Amino acid sequence: MRSSTPDAAKFARLDFDRGRRTGFGETVYAPGKTPEQLVSIFAAFKRKGQPVLATRVSPEQAAALAGRFADTAYDPTSRTVASTWRTRRAGRRIKGNVAVLAAGTADLPVAEEAAKTVEFFGGTVSRFYDVGIAGLHRLLGVVGEVRKADVVIAAAGMEGALPSVVAGLVPAPVIALPTSVGYGCGAGGFAAVLSMLNSCAEGVTVVNIDNGFGAAVAACRMLRKQG
Amino acid sequence: MRSSTPDAAKFARLDFDRGRRTGFGETVYAPGKTPEQLVSIFAAFKRKGQPVLATRVSPEQAAALAGRFADTAYDPTSRTVASTWRTRRAGRRIKGNVAVLAAGTADLPVAEEAAKTVEFFGGTVSRFYDVGIAGLHRLLGVVGEVRKADVVIAAAGMEGALPSVVAGLVPAPVIALPTSVGYGCGAGGFAAVLSMLNSCAEGVTVVNIDNGFGAAVAACRMLRKQG
Amino acid sequence: MRSSTPDAAKFARLDFDRGRRTGFGETVYAPGKTPEQLVSIFAAFKRKGQPVLATRVSPEQAAALAGRFADTAYDPTSRTVASTWRTRRAGRRIKGNVAVLAAGTADLPVAEEAAKTVEFFGGTVSRFYDVGIAGLHRLLGVVGEVRKADVVIAAAGMEGALPSVVAGLVPAPVIALPTSVGYGCGAGGFAAVLSMLNSCAEGVTVVNIDNGFGAAVAACRMLRKQG
Amino acid sequence: MRSSTPDAAKFARLDFDRGRRTGFGETVYAPGKTPEQLVSIFAAFKRKGQPVLATRVSPEQAAALAGRFADTAYDPTSRTVASTWRTRRAGRRIKGNVAVLAAGTADLPVAEEAAKTVEFFGGTVSRFYDVGIAGLHRLLGVVGEVRKADVVIAAAGMEGALPSVVAGLVPAPVIALPTSVGYGCGAGGFAAVLSMLNSCAEGVTVVNIDNGFGAAVAACRMLRKQG
Amino acid sequence: MRSSTPDAAKFARLDFDRGRRTGFGETVYAPGKTPEQLVSIFAAFKRKGQPVLATRVSPEQAAALAGRFADTAYDPTSRTVASTWRTRRAGRRIKGNVAVLAAGTADLPVAEEAAKTVEFFGGTVSRFYDVGIAGLHRLLGVVGEVRKADVVIAAAGMEGALPSVVAGLVPAPVIALPTSVGYGCGAGGFAAVLSMLNSCAEGVTVVNIDNGFGAAVAACRMLRKQG
Amino acid sequence: MRSSTPDAAKFARLDFDRGRRTGFGETVYAPGKTPEQLVSIFAAFKRKGQPVLATRVSPEQAAALAGRFADTAYDPTSRTVASTWRTRRAGRRIKGNVAVLAAGTADLPVAEEAAKTVEFFGGTVSRFYDVGIAGLHRLLGVVGEVRKADVVIAAAGMEGALPSVVAGLVPAPVIALPTSVGYGCGAGGFAAVLSMLNSCAEGVTVVNIDNGFGAAVAACRMLRKQG
Amino acid sequence: MRSSTPDAAKFARLDFDRGRRTGFGETVYAPGKTPEQLVSIFAAFKRKGQPVLATRVSPEQAAALAGRFADTAYDPTSRTVASTWRTRRAGRRIKGNVAVLAAGTADLPVAEEAAKTVEFFGGTVSRFYDVGIAGLHRLLGVVGEVRKADVVIAAAGMEGALPSVVAGLVPAPVIALPTSVGYGCGAGGFAAVLSMLNSCAEGVTVVNIDNGFGAAVAACRMLRKQG
Amino acid sequence: MRSSTPDAAKFARLDFDRGRRTGFGETVYAPGKTPEQLVSIFAAFKRKGQPVLATRVSPEQAAALAGRFADTAYDPTSRTVASTWRTRRAGRRIKGNVAVLAAGTADLPVAEEAAKTVEFFGGTVSRFYDVGIAGLHRLLGVVGEVRKADVVIAAAGMEGALPSVVAGLVPAPVIALPTSVGYGCGAGGFAAVLSMLNSCAEGVTVVNIDNGFGAAVAACRMLRKQG
Repeated sequence: MRSSTPDAAKFARLDFDRGRRTGFGETVYAPGKTPEQLVSIFAAFKRKGQPVLATRVSPEQAAALAGRFADTAYDPTSRTVASTWRTRRAGRRIKGNVAVLAAGTADLPVAEEAAKTVEFFGGTVSRFYDVGIAGLHRLLGVVGEVRKADVVIAAAGMEGALPSVVAGLVPAPVIALPTSVGYGCGAGGFAAVLSMLNSCAEGVTVVNIDNGFGAAVAACRMLRKQG
Repeated sequence: MRSSTPDAAKFARLDFDRGRRTGFGETVYAPGKTPEQLVSIFAAFKRKGQPVLATRVSPEQAAALAGRFADTAYDPTSRTVASTWRTRRAGRRIKGNVAVLAAGTADLPVAEEAAKTVEFFGGTVSRFYDVGIAGLHRLLGVVGEVRKADVVIAAAGMEGALPSVVAGLVPAPVIALPTSVGYGCGAGGFAAVLSMLNSCAEGVTVVNIDNGFGAAVAACRMLRKQG
Repeated sequence: MRSSTPDAAKFARLDFDRGRRTGFGETVYAPGKTPEQLVSIFAAFKRKGQPVLATRVSPEQAAALAGRFADTAYDPTSRTVASTWRTRRAGRRIKGNVAVLAAGTADLPVAEEAAKTVEFFGGTVSRFYDVGIAGLHRLLGVVGEVRKADVVIAAAGMEGALPSVVAGLVPAPVIALPTSVGYGCGAGGFAAVLSMLNSCAEGVTVVNIDNGFGAAVAACRMLRKQG
Repeated sequence: MRSSTPDAAKFARLDFDRGRRTGFGETVYAPGKTPEQLVSIFAAFKRKGQPVLATRVSPEQAAALAGRFADTAYDPTSRTVASTWRTRRAGRRIKGNVAVLAAGTADLPVAEEAAKTVEFFGGTVSRFYDVGIAGLHRLLGVVGEVRKADVVIAAAGMEGALPSVVAGLVPAPVIALPTSVGYGCGAGGFAAVLSMLNSCAEGVTVVNIDNGFGAAVAACRMLRKQG
Repeated sequence: MRSSTPDAAKFARLDFDRGRRTGFGETVYAPGKTPEQLVSIFAAFKRKGQPVLATRVSPEQAAALAGRFADTAYDPTSRTVASTWRTRRAGRRIKGNVAVLAAGTADLPVAEEAAKTVEFFGGTVSRFYDVGIAGLHRLLGVVGEVRKADVVIAAAGMEGALPSVVAGLVPAPVIALPTSVGYGCGAGGFAAVLSMLNSCAEGVTVVNIDNGFGAAVAACRMLRKQG
Repeated sequence: MRSSTPDAAKFARLDFDRGRRTGFGETVYAPGKTPEQLVSIFAAFKRKGQPVLATRVSPEQAAALAGRFADTAYDPTSRTVASTWRTRRAGRRIKGNVAVLAAGTADLPVAEEAAKTVEFFGGTVSRFYDVGIAGLHRLLGVVGEVRKADVVIAAAGMEGALPSVVAGLVPAPVIALPTSVGYGCGAGGFAAVLSMLNSCAEGVTVVNIDNGFGAAVAACRMLRKQG
Repeated sequence: MRSSTPDAAKFARLDFDRGRRTGFGETVYAPGKTPEQLVSIFAAFKRKGQPVLATRVSPEQAAALAGRFADTAYDPTSRTVASTWRTRRAGRRIKGNVAVLAAGTADLPVAEEAAKTVEFFGGTVSRFYDVGIAGLHRLLGVVGEVRKADVVIAAAGMEGALPSVVAGLVPAPVIALPTSVGYGCGAGGFAAVLSMLNSCAEGVTVVNIDNGFGAAVAACRMLRKQG
Repeated sequence: MRSSTPDAAKFARLDFDRGRRTGFGETVYAPGKTPEQLVSIFAAFKRKGQPVLATRVSPEQAAALAGRFADTAYDPTSRTVASTWRTRRAGRRIKGNVAVLAAGTADLPVAEEAAKTVEFFGGTVSRFYDVGIAGLHRLLGVVGEVRKADVVIAAAGMEGALPSVVAGLVPAPVIALPTSVGYGCGAGGFAAVLSMLNSCAEGVTVVNIDNGFGAAVAACRMLRKQG
C-alpha cells in the first residue's frame, strides 16, 4: 500500500523498514501531495540513506525535487522521479529480466511507469514498443528476444489484444496492462481490460487500467522467486 | 427485414418480389414459428418456384420440414434449412468469394450460419476454422489463402481479437462477427463486441453478437458491387 | 494502424511503403503530437513525393502546417489537413462513389472526417446532410440519389436510427457511423452505437463512436473491389 | 398500483371503489397468483357487478378462469382475460382512439396487451402491425390512418426506432413502448429503451420494457382529457 | 427535430411553415451556435413575423440577442430566450394548464425549461417547486392544486421518486422528467431515469435526462387534444 | 459470515460460541446444502441446547427438517426454519421493536426473511405490508405506528422509493432493503438499489438486493445499543 | 432533505423548527450557492440563536463566511463551516460515540465530513485513519479501541474492503462509506460501493459514494436510540 | 488455447507436442463435447503415453470416462478428470508450491479446479479454505503457512476482498481468482472482479471469473521460473 492523496494536516507515516522487510524500497504516489511535501519525503529518505521512487509526478513537482536534490532523476515520459544517491541497503536485490511491450506510442507513459519501477527494484528491462497487433510483423520480428524474458508485461489500450497474442508465443508469465488509450466504446480502457480478462490464451493475469506501477510490483514478486 | 416471432393469429406477409428487387432470395427467422407455419412458408415459396432459407431452425422444426419436403437441406451445425428445388429465378447472382474464419470450434455455429447464408445468395465461401490468435501459427499458415478472398468474415468470442489481427494482414473489408462464446466478464459476447468496435486495425466493421446471418448479408451487399 | 500519441522522445517510424502496398496513402492521427512533430512528418512525406492526410488536427496544429506548407489544405469542419503537392504515386486508385449521410448538423465533423478521408484515398463522395429520421421527407427526397452510391456511410448520434432506415431503402452496403452527439442516457454516443448494432435492417455494419476515419477506410476497402 | 406477486397467506385487498374514483376499472397482474386466487378475485368483482381485467395470464390460469366463468374472454396473444359480464358502472367512460403500432410480429404480445387494456377502459384501438422501419413503405402506407388517432402507442424491440420515425409524421402524443425482442447487445430490450429515450423526434415519452399495460394506462389518462 | 450543433459552413434551413403545420412555433437549440448565428436566426423569424424560442442559451449568446433585439426576453434560470414581437400567426393555440413540479431547487433550470416552453406554445403553467418526497408535507399541501392540471410534468434528480408519488395522487397524465442532479451512484441522472421507468404507479411516461424541452412538447401534444 | 454452498466433502465448522460472543445465535444459509447436511447441523445445535435459524430453505429441505424434528417451525413465505427447542442460553437478548414495511405483496418473502430473523434474535417486529408509494394513503394511515419503532426496515422493488418517503416521516434509522421485484429496466432489483443509494432523504442506509437477513442483522446491531 | 443548488431567484425556505422536531440542527449543502446567499443563511440562523452547519464549502465561500462571522469555524479538510455562537437550543442532544475509520489519506475529506457532522449534532467521534486492509497490522492495532464505539463509520475507496473486515471484528452497526478514490475500473467509487453492498460480513449497511454527511445522519439516528 | 465447444463434425486437432514444447501436458475443456468425444480424446493420449486433464466435466461425461478407463481419476468437487496412466514424458517438471485459498465453501469448486490443475502440471498445493475476511482470525491463524508458498491463488466471490488482505501479508505473487458466488448487485462475480482489479494492495493480478484453470496455468508459468 502506498500513501495516497490528499495528505491532510500532517502527512503519511513513512515506512523506513519496508526495504528490509520485503527487499523492495519505498515508493510514493505523487498526486495530491504538494511539492513541499514531496521534497520533505525525499529528504527523509536521503537522511536514512534509503532509495525512494515517486510515480505520477507532475512537472511542477518534478521541478521542486530537481531544485532541491541534484541526486534525483526525473523521467517525463514515465512521470517518475527516482533517487540516485548512495544507499546503505545491502540486502538481496531482485534478479531477472522483464520484457515490457507496448502496442502503440500512446501506451508509452504507462509502459514506462512499469519499466522504471522494475528498474528501481533492481530488475532489468527489455523494451519492445510499437508492436501492436495491427502490424503483426513488428511483433513477430522481436518475439525471439521477448522469449528470453523471465516475465512479460504487455501494455495496450483500444481492443487490448496484445497480451493474448503474446501469451501464445512465449512461456513466461504474461501480465496484461490495460491502458486508458481509446475513445467511444473503448473510452477509459474498459474494452481493453475486458478483452484481457477474457483472453483465450492461457496464463494471462490482469491489473487495473493504467496501473503500470502495480504491474511492475507483481512482476518483481515473480522475479524474487529467482534469487 | 425478416419476419420474426411469435407470429400471432395469421402469419407474416411473404415478400415474393424481394428476390427480384434486390437480387437476394427470401429468408425466414425460425424461432417463434410453429413447425406447421414453417412448412406453410416453405410450401408457398415452392409453389412460386423461389428459393428460401430458414435460420436458427430447431431440430423439431427441421424434422417437420424434412418430413414434408425431400428437396430441402438441413445443416445442424449452422441450424439452417435451405430449399434445393429448381427455381425460376434467372436474375444476376452474387459473384465473389467470402473467407469465413472462426477462432474456436465453439464459434462454428455462428460462422456456419454466415457461410451457409452467403452460399444461399450465390457467393462462394472459403472456411478457415480454429485459427484463434492464441495459436498464431495456425492463422499465419492460412493467411495467404485468406488474402485471396473478396470479403472476410471473422468470428470470435472471448476476447474477440481475431478480426483485428486479420485486418492487419489482408486488404479486403473485414466484417467482425462477435459470438456469445465466453463466461465471467465476457459472458454473452460483450467483451468480444467491445473489443471489435475498438480495433486498432483500420477498416473493421462490426455486427451484433451471434449475427452470422447479418454478417453474410453485409458481405453479399459488398460482393454485389463486383458483378 | 496509425501511429498515435503521445509520441515520446523520438517519433513514430513512418511507413513510406504503405501507399504502394495497399493502394492507400499514409495518414496521421494528430492528437498528442506537437505542431513541430506534425510539420516534420509532413516534410518527410513531401520529400518522398507522397501524399499525407492528418486527422483530428487542432487549430494550433493547422496553423503550424499552413505556415510551413503552402501546398496543404486545412478543413476546419472535418479537422483534417491534406497535402496538395504533386505526388509520384502512379499506382491504381480507388474507384467508386461513397454516399455520406448525416442526421443532424452536429454530426457534420464526424461525417466530414469520413468524407475527406474517402476523397484522400481517391474515391468520390456524395454528401446528404441534415436528413435525420425525425423529418423523414428530407431523407425520402434524396433517396434516389443515395441509391446510386457504391457504399453508404450513415452518421447519426442521439437514437442512431438513420442507418437502419437507409439500409431498408438502398441495396449498397451501409456502414453505420455512431457519433457522440447526445446527452443524458445517450451521452457519448452509447445509445446510437447500441441502436446500430441491433438494427432490424439487414446488412448494416458498425464502427466505433466518432470513428469517421475508420468508416472511410472500411468503405475504401469495399470500393477497391471495384477496380 | 396493481397487486402483485406472490400473494402470501391472504391476498390483496381489492379496490372496488377504484372504478368510480378514476373512471377506470380494476386490473389484476396475474403472475404469482394461483389459479384459485384468480378465480376468487374474478368472483368478487362479478358479485359487485364490476368489470375486471387480468394481464400476463398463463394458459393454466386462463383455463381455470374459463372453467369457472362463461362470461370472460381469454386472448392468448395478449395473455389477457377480461370479464364480459354486465356491469353496473354507469360513470363516464374514456372517449377517443388509440393507434397501436408494432414493428414486428414478435412485438405483438406487448402491443396487444396495450390494445386490450385500452379497450377494457373504453377507448377504441386502431392496429397497425408489422410496420417496422426496415420496410418503410409499409409504415408510409398507413401513416394517413395513424394521423387520425388521438394518441399513438408504438411498440418496437431491436433498435427501437419506430416511435422516433412515427413522431415525425403525426401530431398526436407518441408513447414509445420498448419490447424485449432482440439478442446480443440488444438482449432484454435495453437498446430499444435507450434509443427511445434519446429520440431526435420531439414529443416522445417512454415506458418500461414490455410494459404494454402501463403504456395503455398512460394513453387513457391522455384520452380522458377528451371527455 | 431541432437544428443542432455545430452548424458548419452555412446553417440549418429554417422551417417557417412549421408553425402553421403543427400549431407550434419554431425553437432553436442554442449550444454550438455562434452568437452571430443566433442573431441571424432570430432576425429571420422577426422578418417573417413569427415567434421563436431558443433553449440552453449561454450568457454570451443571451447578451448578443439582447443587444440586437429589444423585443426578446431572456430568462437565466431556464436558459431560454423568447421573442416578444408581434406575430402574424392567427391559428389555433394550445389550450390547457400544465402543472410543473420540481423536487429540489437544483432541478429548477430543467423544470423552468419545460415551463417556459409550454408557455411559448400557448399553454398556461402552474409551478410547484421544492416539493421533493423527503418532505412529504410540502407535496401534500399542494396536491389539491396539482389535481386541477390537465397534464403534470414532475422533475426530479437523485432517487427520482417524485413522479411515482404524484401519479398515485392525480388523474392526469404524468410526464416524468429526470434531471442530472445527483452524485456518486446517481451521477448524471441515471438513478432517476431508471427509477422513473420502473415506477410502481400506473400511467407515468418518461423523457431523457434534463430534457425539459421534450417534456414540454409532449405535454403540448397532449393538450392540443383539448382544443 | 455464514457458511455457504456447496459444502464440499465435509461441511462447515459450526461456531457454537458465537451466541455467547455476540449475543446472537447461529444461522445457516440453506442453498447448496443437502437435506441430510441441514439435518445434521440442526442436530448438532440441538445437542448443545442452542437455537438455530436456517434461511432460504427449499420445500424439500424443510420437509427433511420437519420429518426429523418436531420442535422446529417452517415458514414458507420467508423460507425460514427456526428451532423451537428449549435453549440453555441465558445471556442478554436484543430489546426493542423493528418496523418492517413492504411496498407490495411480491416483496413479502424478503420482508419476512428480515422479520423472522429479527424475531429469532429476540427483537419484536411490527409489520406494515402493501404500503407502496403509489397508494400513499395506505402508508400515511400507518405512519403513526411506524414512528414508534426503534429501527425501520423498508423493503421495495420496482422504483424502490418507499425508504426515501419513510425516512422523511420517522426519526428512527431506516434500512433500505431493495428486492428483485421488477422487470425490464428494473430487472433484478438494480433500479431499486440505485434509487435507495441516491435517496434525497437523510439517514437511509442500504443493503444488497433481497438481503432480508442482512437487513435484520444490521437492525439487531442497532437495537443491541438499547440494552 | 437539504436545500440544494442552484438556488434560483430567491432561495430555499429555512426550516427553523427542525432542530426542535428532530433534535438535530439545520445543515446547508453549499455547492451552487453564492457566498452572499450563504452569509444570509448563516445570519438568519444567528438571529434565531440556532446552530448551523454548511458542508462542501469552497474556499471562496469559506472566506466570505469568515469575513462576516468571527463565531464560525472552517475546516478545510472536511470542507465544513460550523457556527460556534451560543445557541438557545436546550433540547436533548445525541449521546454516544462514533468511530470513524478511513482506509487511506485520500479518504480523509469524506471521513472528516462525517466526523464533523456527528460532532455538530452532539455526538463524540473517535478517529482511526490510514487503517486500510493492505497494512492489516495498523487496523488490528486499533481494533480494541474501535470496539468501544456505539456506531462505526468505515470510509474506503479503491476495492472498498475495510467495512467488511471491520464488521467481522466489532459488534456495533457498521456504516460503509464508499469514496470516489480510485481510477481505471474503480473510477468514481463504483468498485467500492459494489464491494460494500456485497460484503460477506453481516450487518453492514451502505450509503452513496462520498456521502459523509448521510453516513453521519444515519449514525446519529442510531445514536439517538441511546438517550 | 484449449479446444472448446461445440465441436462440429470432426473434433479439434490434438496437440501432442505441447507437453514437450512447454513442459506442460494437454488439457481439455469438457463442456460441449459428447461423452464419446471425450473418451476418444483420452484414448488418443493414452495411446501416445501422454497425460491429459479434462476440466468442467459433467457427471455424465465423468461416468463415460470411468466406464472406459480404470486409470483415470474423477474429482466431483473440482469437476476434473485426470489420467493416472504411466506416461513417457521424462522432461523437466514444474517445481514449487502453490497456496490455494478460498474465502467460503461455495468457492471450493473453483479453488479446487485451480489446485487440481497445478497438481496435474507437477506443482504441489497447500489448501487453506474457509478463510474469508469476515472471520479474520481464521486467515491470521494460517498466514504463517501461506507465507511459505511460492505463489498464492486466492479465490473469493461476494465482495472479493480476500486477495487484497492476503497480498498485504505475504511476499509471493498473489493471483486473485474471482468466483461467481454472490447475488443481487454481486451476481455473477462482477463485484468480486472489480474489487480485485482495484485492490489497494500491491502486486495482485487478476483472472476471469471462475477461471480456476487459468489461475493455475499462470501460477505454473511463474513456478517454472524456479526450475
